[in-house]
Amino acid sequence: MVKEIESEIDWSEPLENVLPDFSKSGPLDVYRKQCSFNWREMASTLDDEEAIRIKNGLWKKMEQDPLFAHSPVDLSLEEHRISTLKKVFRFQDAVATLERGGETLSRPYSPRGRTVKNVEIATALGQYDWSVCLRRGILLGFFPNAVRGLGTEKHRKYINAAEKLQLTGCIAMTEISHGTNTKAFRTRATFDTRKQKFILHTPDFEAAKCWSANLGKTANYAYILAQLYTPDGECHGLHGFVVPIRDKQMNPLPGVTIGDMGAKIGLNGLDNGFMMFDNYELDIEGLLDKTGTVTPEGTYISPIKDTKKRFSASLGVLSGPRFGIVGLVVANASIAISIAIRYSAVRRQFGPDGSPELPVIEYQMQQCRLFPLLAGCYVFKCFSRYLFDTLFEFILSQFNPDISAEERAVMGAELHGISAAAKPVAGWLARDTVQESREACGGHGYLKAAGIGRLRDDGDSFLTFEGDNNVLLQQASNWLLNVWVNTKREEMATSSPFGAIKFLKNADARLKKKFVFKSREPREDFLQPGAILKAYKWLVCYLLKSTSEKFQGIQASGEDNFTAKNDSQFYHARTLSIVFVENYALDVFWHKFANNEDISWNIRLVLKKLMLIYGLSCLERHAGILYAGGYFSGPKPGRYIRENIIQLCKELKAEAISLVDALAPTDFILNSCLGASDGQVYKHLENAMKQTPGCFEKSKDWVDISKSLYSKL
Amino acid sequence: MVKEIESEIDWSEPLENVLPDFSKSGPLDVYRKQCSFNWREMASTLDDEEAIRIKNGLWKKMEQDPLFAHSPVDLSLEEHRISTLKKVFRFQDAVATLERGGETLSRPYSPRGRTVKNVEIATALGQYDWSVCLRRGILLGFFPNAVRGLGTEKHRKYINAAEKLQLTGCIAMTEISHGTNTKAFRTRATFDTRKQKFILHTPDFEAAKCWSANLGKTANYAYILAQLYTPDGECHGLHGFVVPIRDKQMNPLPGVTIGDMGAKIGLNGLDNGFMMFDNYELDIEGLLDKTGTVTPEGTYISPIKDTKKRFSASLGVLSGPRFGIVGLVVANASIAISIAIRYSAVRRQFGPDGSPELPVIEYQMQQCRLFPLLAGCYVFKCFSRYLFDTLFEFILSQFNPDISAEERAVMGAELHGISAAAKPVAGWLARDTVQESREACGGHGYLKAAGIGRLRDDGDSFLTFEGDNNVLLQQASNWLLNVWVNTKREEMATSSPFGAIKFLKNADARLKKKFVFKSREPREDFLQPGAILKAYKWLVCYLLKSTSEKFQGIQASGEDNFTAKNDSQFYHARTLSIVFVENYALDVFWHKFANNEDISWNIRLVLKKLMLIYGLSCLERHAGILYAGGYFSGPKPGRYIRENIIQLCKELKAEAISLVDALAPTDFILNSCLGASDGQVYKHLENAMKQTPGCFEKSKDWVDISKSLYSKL
Ligand SMILES: Cc1cc2nc3c(=O)[nH]c(=O)nc-3n(C[C@H](O)[C@H](O)[C@H](O)COP(=O)(O)OP(=O)(O)OC[C@H]3O[C@@H](n4cnc5c(N)ncnc54)[C@H](O)[C@@H]3O)c2cc1C
Ligand SMILES: Cc1cc2nc3c(=O)[nH]c(=O)nc-3n(C[C@H](O)[C@H](O)[C@H](O)COP(=O)(O)OP(=O)(O)OC[C@H]3O[C@@H](n4cnc5c(N)ncnc54)[C@H](O)[C@@H]3O)c2cc1C
Repeated sequence: MVKEIESEIDWSEPLENVLPDFSKSGPLDVYRKQCSFNWREMASTLDDEEAIRIKNGLWKKMEQDPLFAHSPVDLSLEEHRISTLKKVFRFQDAVATLERGGETLSRPYSPRGRTVKNVEIATALGQYDWSVCLRRGILLGFFPNAVRGLGTEKHRKYINAAEKLQLTGCIAMTEISHGTNTKAFRTRATFDTRKQKFILHTPDFEAAKCWSANLGKTANYAYILAQLYTPDGECHGLHGFVVPIRDKQMNPLPGVTIGDMGAKIGLNGLDNGFMMFDNYELDIEGLLDKTGTVTPEGTYISPIKDTKKRFSASLGVLSGPRFGIVGLVVANASIAISIAIRYSAVRRQFGPDGSPELPVIEYQMQQCRLFPLLAGCYVFKCFSRYLFDTLFEFILSQFNPDISAEERAVMGAELHGISAAAKPVAGWLARDTVQESREACGGHGYLKAAGIGRLRDDGDSFLTFEGDNNVLLQQASNWLLNVWVNTKREEMATSSPFGAIKFLKNADARLKKKFVFKSREPREDFLQPGAILKAYKWLVCYLLKSTSEKFQGIQASGEDNFTAKNDSQFYHARTLSIVFVENYALDVFWHKFANNEDISWNIRLVLKKLMLIYGLSCLERHAGILYAGGYFSGPKPGRYIRENIIQLCKELKAEAISLVDALAPTDFILNSCLGASDGQVYKHLENAMKQTPGCFEKSKDWVDISKSLYSKL
Repeated sequence: MVKEIESEIDWSEPLENVLPDFSKSGPLDVYRKQCSFNWREMASTLDDEEAIRIKNGLWKKMEQDPLFAHSPVDLSLEEHRISTLKKVFRFQDAVATLERGGETLSRPYSPRGRTVKNVEIATALGQYDWSVCLRRGILLGFFPNAVRGLGTEKHRKYINAAEKLQLTGCIAMTEISHGTNTKAFRTRATFDTRKQKFILHTPDFEAAKCWSANLGKTANYAYILAQLYTPDGECHGLHGFVVPIRDKQMNPLPGVTIGDMGAKIGLNGLDNGFMMFDNYELDIEGLLDKTGTVTPEGTYISPIKDTKKRFSASLGVLSGPRFGIVGLVVANASIAISIAIRYSAVRRQFGPDGSPELPVIEYQMQQCRLFPLLAGCYVFKCFSRYLFDTLFEFILSQFNPDISAEERAVMGAELHGISAAAKPVAGWLARDTVQESREACGGHGYLKAAGIGRLRDDGDSFLTFEGDNNVLLQQASNWLLNVWVNTKREEMATSSPFGAIKFLKNADARLKKKFVFKSREPREDFLQPGAILKAYKWLVCYLLKSTSEKFQGIQASGEDNFTAKNDSQFYHARTLSIVFVENYALDVFWHKFANNEDISWNIRLVLKKLMLIYGLSCLERHAGILYAGGYFSGPKPGRYIRENIIQLCKELKAEAISLVDALAPTDFILNSCLGASDGQVYKHLENAMKQTPGCFEKSKDWVDISKSLYSKL
């Protein structure tokens, strides 16, 4: 299966060759000519040049490789899975080649560079097919990271083997009746002193591990979470284990039952499986013993005394990927919005009497439906790059002796709060972008060949895994409320290591502010990023205050903590987490990108417009709160926000195609008859339909059926 | 293929047998016991008893018939289509049997009864599989109706044959480059006096007919729209033609090229096709000549002088189905919400310390995510029944000599405006309901066996066909604005035959009103349906006024009508159409159902709660406008609306399962391992997974690949 891939990336190739110019003659050219900036410069603002080279290099390789050719017919579940797996392995070569290319040019990766590269590869691969991306991510990332996180020196061999793909791993945490509430997992690992083994056991089907990706058909090792019992019958809470589950012939080992979960809404190249243990005997070394171990005599010993903390430590390692998901969902949405905007610039429908029909992108409706979503993709794409840097800073901090454990804990808490809010908000932005893009393409958007269906079906899963979106928002608001009611709020805000809550320092003063018009032309007040960010900071403070009051009110009425938390969610804590992260994303986008003097002026002008469009559209949705809370009054704020959105979208029309050019993957990856960069929609549509196998064939079955029916007319 | 179906409906069977009680021992029982009403009584409030018998009768027959057994594996495109078609034909028998059953009991259908029956059958069938419903609808409904609408006596034979399924028809209007802008279709029908034939010709691929359902593989006749040309080269606008397109062997006739459009996002049991004519010769009788004809000498004659009107007449016949779609999308959403709510009552996750975990339906978050959507389904289900009656009244009016043509025109315009707003708003409600239901089921909701994926994929198409949702909203607002600026507005409002715009009579007075609290407990003011309806009427008037001012402002600045229309859409005309129909639906739901004294008190109490929940949730979304326009001021209105929604949802928890029981189809039709009425989620989940073919089989391909990989650990 493993073939040599010849071509290698030439790191000295001019960027113009990596990102070649688009066709100058197609129907999109008229819009490309209107734009105020260079799309290639925009592309290199969105991504590091290195990232651009890596992803475009990989895409080129994939395009040349028959294994990656798009199938004209639907594959069966089994075919889809095997083909996905082959791609994961083939990709391994491509990556190796790339690295060699890199090394030839003496480009040894820094730890950060290596991580950037991995993120880029994951994204580039996901834009081709999310099943390939996720399978690879679990084999090479999640599994070894999970073992690294909880394991000790003796487990290094698993990590090494996994990273060379000599071991295929899966993560088996979720059980049939417990996903979100991890603490309640019921799989048991009881230590048997006589055998010197852990006896893994699944009490019933409801405790079966499930949803584990790669488990259904592929994995020979599993990282599992189970409740550790000592022979005295005491439970020491959840612990991680690395467990061999299949032999070389891929038969489940004795005591293990494994099944495939079958067809899903999407991601069908991925084999999610379920698994039950029947008094399965695991070598003692299978326990990942960083946070606790069992002596040969069966006594539990742990460096961490508090079981709660032990539990947190065991889950902490798995919270990083949420940041990754922000980038992945934006990459998914970027494809959809690129298809919809390019198609809208080509598709003509209606026009003024006697004139040629207009491309539908000329209509206010189409602009205002699509451009705020495009702006959202830009904001969250840049935000996800920034998040990645914060994460990296955090990871490096552990090697920095100047940073105390306490400081690290504060950093960790802030990152956790940010990621718990960013993943859902980005996920829903992506969901809505994909759906609106589908609808914006009218009937032809419903064709499979339009390429939007797969984005919806696969992308949907991101709303649920790595933490259900709605539950994550609760975690984010818990953190925010903790800060809010803490007597050291001012101090915490000041030290906010990533700056997400610095503005809480003068929250009381902020809450007293009202929006006042300052410019002579009042509409223009809402064209100031500062005004939007101020309104947002008021919003966050207002919701913190009202949520916290709500919570205390319920407590005061005699309810317990659990009830008070649950009963202050909707319209309170939930909205709080959403506005918190919208504010932070806008803040980052403005300060680090749109207002960053390292970026050229004309690029920044467009980024500013995007910031305004996304910011105002979000504020518009929160107008009810801004009014009810007294920050806004009178008809003007609502009216000017709306008028500005409409006006800005109108102005963005000239930029939209180039913005999409800078965001979209290559045509091969985009894989849409409506969204190709040459704008030849009808030619591609014709090819797509006519090349479908059986397009012109008649249905034999139907000929038979129809014989008995037809009357002579 | 056609088998006898033995069992027949027994019209005298007690309703208790048709809608048998649910299991009393399952996990849903605790909630069933809490509710304040009888679910069977609710079911007969939602549907006529006759409708209940019909749909349950059909569902039972389907369940007994192996042809309708749910396939455990995905069918290929070809298999899916043939199986769908077989079901359409089998269904024909079932319907016949039912009718016989009806007649035995001397239940001759009235015209209304017959239509109710057809609507019920379509819905019942669609809930099983939307492809079956739509294929049947086109064969037996759309096609003959289209011919009836534009044809004359000589075309009756086509209608008769179609209704007996001795002819398989399709509707071919849409072209590759024109869908919404029907006027611009480019297929030509040129009369040739020598041959006494119409020469049908497709100038290029962009003018190919496409998307035509049943065309890909099945149809032997097409209803097409083409531009009629007389030999003198003059174009007389769009006309309908009935055109034989395939011979008995299902080969396209000479001069016709037909292709299948291939895989789609959903509805893959339906064979959408494309078609081109190459100087195809059509007998003169093929012209549907109600609105115009050509003499043998080639002169065009028409009873309607104005080409514009002629065009409208030719499209009018096709606007009825939009009302039908309101019912269909609600039926689709009802399945999703039933699955999500039942699952939420069984799925336990977290709980207060030391107590058993709580079903997630106990959480405010889950309640407030799902119940407003459930309420929306109830409101729109009842609304669609009412719409059906208005449509029927309109149809009957043509036989009523007391109703003048002018009066009919007013009725027609109002119905068109209502349907153009109702179809999109119901469609998006359904879309959001399906999506939220998917997310509310967490990971297991992502399984195909959960049954929500098909609802999303098939249901998505409703947003586009029978008029793109966004374009339809423009048509609705055009009508409303016409009424608004008309000097006879008062008169028009007074005569509003269906009452949708009666309240415009005193619009000026309404616009001066502000919301004032009246009760001693101000929160309670928002528990009055009257208060919600008043706020809504203010909203509609406010948006009418501001949209109309916006429009006139643009005109005054020198822009033409076309531009002024387009530039007053977003946040104006579009929102106007939405609030208009939300108001009307709530109005109808309140006056004809929740406040209808023919309905028993305890049922009405629950309906009132649903009205409040849906109404307040919608108002909450419009709070920004209500504040900006000055109808609301201060923090209280916003706050009380939100608090009421939360409180009402909490109260509805006790009713939710029974509300769903009254709404959901039978378990066989629901076809979800998460949503079965016995609540045995984990048992069904286990069966679904274990019964998937290949669940426990290993992948041979993978065994081969893996051999070369594994190192010894
Ligand atoms: C494609 C896919 C791949 C996956 N891969 C893996 C894998 O490799 N390994 C693995 O271990 N797992 C995997 N999972 C499982 C995934 O992690 C879980 O599905 C996810 O964590 C959600 O948990 P759940 O399904 O138990 O949802 P539930 O917690 O059951 O959620 C159901 C509903 O209840 C709500 N809810 C839950 N708790 C509360 C609360 N306290 N308050 C209010 N509402 C609440 C949720 O919002 C949701 O609406 C995968 C899932 C999918 C879909
Ligand atoms: C499953 C399916 C079945 C179908 N079956 C049939 C059939 O049997 N027979 C048949 O003839 N057709 C059929 N159709 C075609 C269907 O009727 C058209 O797709 C539909 O009318 C939309 O038209 P369109 O595709 O041209 O959209 P377009 O008009 O091209 O819409 C593209 C985008 O432009 C926007 N837009 C268009 N005009 C304006 C404007 N003036 N202002 C602002 N925005 C605008 C739309 O909102 C949309 O976002 C079917 C379609 C589907 C998906």
